[in-house]
Parts: sequence; structure tokens; C-alpha cells
Amino acid sequence: MLYDNERIDEVNDSLSLIQRTDGLTFGTDALLLAGYVSTHGGVGAELGGGSGIISMLLLARDKLTRISAYEVQEYYASLIERNAEYNRLSDRLHSVCADVRELRATEDADVVFTNPPYMKATGGKNNDRDEKAIARHEICGTITDFCIAAKKLLKYGGAFYAVYRPDRLTDIICAMRDAGIEPKRATFVHADTNSEASMVLIEGKRGGKSGMNLTPPLIIYGDSAHKEYSDEMKYIMENGWFPKGFKR
Amino acid sequence: MLYDNERIDEVNDSLSLIQRTDGLTFGTDALLLAGYVSTHGGVGAELGGGSGIISMLLLARDKLTRISAYEVQEYYASLIERNAEYNRLSDRLHSVCADVRELRATEDADVVFTNPPYMKATGGKNNDRDEKAIARHEICGTITDFCIAAKKLLKYGGAFYAVYRPDRLTDIICAMRDAGIEPKRATFVHADTNSEASMVLIEGKRGGKSGMNLTPPLIIYGDSAHKEYSDEMKYIMENGWFPKGFKR
Repeated sequence: MLYDNERIDEVNDSLSLIQRTDGLTFGTDALLLAGYVSTHGGVGAELGGGSGIISMLLLARDKLTRISAYEVQEYYASLIERNAEYNRLSDRLHSVCADVRELRATEDADVVFTNPPYMKATGGKNNDRDEKAIARHEICGTITDFCIAAKKLLKYGGAFYAVYRPDRLTDIICAMRDAGIEPKRATFVHADTNSEASMVLIEGKRGGKSGMNLTPPLIIYGDSAHKEYSDEMKYIMENGWFPKGFKR
Repeated sequence: MLYDNERIDEVNDSLSLIQRTDGLTFGTDALLLAGYVSTHGGVGAELGGGSGIISMLLLARDKLTRISAYEVQEYYASLIERNAEYNRLSDRLHSVCADVRELRATEDADVVFTNPPYMKATGGKNNDRDEKAIARHEICGTITDFCIAAKKLLKYGGAFYAVYRPDRLTDIICAMRDAGIEPKRATFVHADTNSEASMVLIEGKRGGKSGMNLTPPLIIYGDSAHKEYSDEMKYIMENGWFPKGFKR
């Protein structure tokens, strides 16, 4: 089941993840996005699935019933299938190898979620490996393309969730609104109360009215030395949900 | 100098403010916006000046050298003049009674700042007094109109500052970008670390590149009973500046 340069990591009691030893491994952004989604069932679609970790976390918590994960890179599209099989989730998770810019409008998903490439294709140095570059840079789709794709897949009234970088807050907010997915809730993630935000979690609604809720900030560490997680962060890691007070 | 239904309040050691006893009195939003502006001199313009408190706070701290305050209501436009005179700031602050939707493009201001009406004209009940309604509701200009007016007054590269409501974050961010004023920095203000944001402070740059900094959250109270201000809030109230760490 494992290829060269792959390993299996235990994510929690119920999930294991095949990931590349030389690729992008899943991180806090994936855990937080999975925790942020607050649905109880329904049909989901992931845009840019990577290893499939976020989809699997959502299925394991029954936040969604089944998920189609769209992934442009063939290796990763097949990795999602293998991860689904390894975790006995093949009947609930399948991957589609496709470019988000070329999706057909199905308008049948209750929820679309994404951890999209954060960096502009022209900004910064691209990585030496194309594979990582596509996951990190807007090579196969900008944030505007990801939001338009989400709109194509979402039912009217369906929910959109993304994790993104603070420096691109304007880009994601304007892209969502332009795509007809109104931003409804945002949470800014800070390492500690004295740090700038390092991540943005955002929820939108296709066809929603304007009006946003900015939750309490999510603080990752409980101490200034960053040795211990905060109580909220521990709660999210243990439960896969954000604590009360972060809900609308 | 005082009309009926007016009183004089001491704002701090150097400023006193004539305000209506039956109108909107200045509050935390004005103090925070004045603290947030981080310039050292230059020509400023205020959109929707009210009593003139924000302009006077900025002049008293020498954040700006002189200011034109645009105010659509005649009573308030003349109140700004009287407040300037009372505080010996007449040579540095003058008011212009004008509708922000009808301003001519001068493009000569280094800084434009505003505490604009927060509520849509059609949403909620309007106040019984027209005067308050115009200050609170988008009767004489929407956030889009305020951003377009700011662009008309700002030099290329000039700075824009606003205090606004979190539920309208998408509206102000999209209005700024559409007007060619790129959002560069935002600070979300929370009563305590467990509360949703109650205010948004935002800084933009006319003609700026995309790329935003989200500062640490500003927490107003140091205790959960909301009896004592936080250290940051005390610092701002005493110094008229945000503490270090909130700067870019």
C-alpha cells in the first residue's frame, strides 16, 4: 500500500494518514478548518484535497455524510483514494482528479470547504518541486477561481468554509462576495494575544444576506513561551469542534 | 457660546468638548480611531465630523497639522467650528458643510479618516430625531460613498482610517478596494477574549498593493466583570496612541 517516500501517521484514535515524507504534511490549518465546519451531515465537496485529511476528519466526526474531493494532481487524487480505503471510508469519500477552473455546475453540495493555495503564482519563489508549488501557489487556480468553483458545486443556501492567510483577507472576502457566497463568520487565529493573526477561518453562505459575525479570537498557545496549547486549542484537538462561544 | 441642550465636557487635560445633551455623545469608537491613526503631521480630512472630537484629538497629538472636517448637517458643521474656537484650534481645524456624495476631487490630503454611519438606511428603525438618524444610518451616503469621497480627497499613496462595525466588515473591505483604497491593516476590538468583536479599526492606502496585516486583537477590559480597562486600553486612553505591537 505504501510507495517510496510515504509513511503512515496516526492522526487520532480513529484515523491514520498516508502522507509523503518529502511533501507537504498536514498541519494546524487542516485541523482548525475541520474543527470550524459546524454541520451535522449532508453532502460535501473539498476543493484541493491534498492527502484527504480534512475530508476524513469531517467524515469521522459525522459532520458530513459523504464527500467528493477535487484534486488537480493525479498523485494526490489517488492518495485520497488510498487514504479512504485504509481508513474504511471508501463508501463515503472519493476523489475527482480535476482542475477547479474546469468544474461543471452541479449545485448539489450542502457544504464546500477548502484549504486553497495561499500564495500568488507570481509572488515569492516557487518551490523546487512542482508538486508543492501547486499546493502552495496559485498555479492551478486563484482564490477567485476557488470561490467560483465553490459556487458551482453549492446548493443555493449551502455553506462554504475556508482557512486562509490574514495578508489575503481582502482577496478572499471580495472573491467570496463576487462569487455570490456571502461571508457570514470569521475567526482570526493568533499564536498568543500579543501576536498578529497567522490564520483566518471564514464561513460563507451561497446567496446569503450581508452581515458578518467575528467570533472571539482563537489563541493557540496558553503561555508566552508557546510550550502549551490554550484550553480552546486543546478542546478543538480533542473534540474536533470549536468550543461554545465560537458558534453563531 | 452654549446653546440650549448643550454642555461642555472635559475630554482630557488639553481638550474640552461642547456636545448636545440630547444628541450622540462621543464614545470609545472615537477615542480608538484617534488612537489608531499613526501619522506624524500632514494634511487631514474627516468625513462626517460630528462634534469634531476625532479631529481635535488628532490635532492635540500633532498626528496631523491641519484638518478639514466635512459634515452634512449644518448644526454639527457649526459645532465643529465652535469646538475648534473653544480649544484654540481654529487655525488648524475648519468644517465644510457638505454631502460626501458631492465632493470635488482635490487629491491633496495625506490622511482621510471617518467614523461613518454604521447602519443601512433601510435596516432597523430609524431614530426619532433626524439628526441622530443621519449620523447613524446611511441616509446621506453609504460606506461606498464614503470610500469614494475618501479617494477623491486623498493624494495617491495617502492613508485612510475608519472605525466600523464587524457585521459590515465585508461591506467596508469591498468598498475600500473598489474605491482604489487597499486595506492594509485591521484591528478587531473585543470587550474581552471570550466576546465577539464589537468594533473594527481599519487602515488603507490609496493605490496600495494588496496585502494585509491583522494586528493582535484589542481587548477593552482586563477582567471578565468589565469593571477595569485592560492595560492596552489604559495605554491608549492615556497616550492617544496604540501600544507597540499594534504597529506595522
